[in-house]
Amino acid sequence: MQTKRRKPANLREIFAKNVLLHRAKLGLTQDELADKCAYHRTYIGSVERAERNITLATIEAFANAFSVEPFSLLVPSDE
Amino acid sequence: MQTKRRKPANLREIFAKNVLLHRAKLGLTQDELADKCAYHRTYIGSVERAERNITLATIEAFANAFSVEPFSLLVPSDE
Repeated sequence: MQTKRRKPANLREIFAKNVLLHRAKLGLTQDELADKCAYHRTYIGSVERAERNITLATIEAFANAFSVEPFSLLVPSDE
Repeated sequence: MQTKRRKPANLREIFAKNVLLHRAKLGLTQDELADKCAYHRTYIGSVERAERNITLATIEAFANAFSVEPFSLLVPSDE
């Protein structure tokens, strides 16, 4: 709902897209990812809709769940 | 005070170090950087001491002030 396009994509949108891409790559549902991160499923949804101004601790939690470097979740996926 | 060593450096510490390195490279005081970011000088200090679990919006503000890509501020500087 809130994912208005800007130029370039802002950091929330980049993070949101990367979470979605990693979750898809691992074949995880939002529920399954929520379990791995110890978040609620609805929170995962709001992150993937770029609704959350998330913190460093949250970036770390997702990076751990995906076994990737935290910074990689802020790299624009279409660049 | 709160910058306990972990292995590897956690994301707060990585961000803190990168802010300090960029500020030094640009020859900015904390006051001058605070002006560029529209934060208070004491906030810059607390970020550089890794005391803050900062958000995506804050990462963007620092990245803009340094004219770098936001993700680069989360790349470990000694790796």
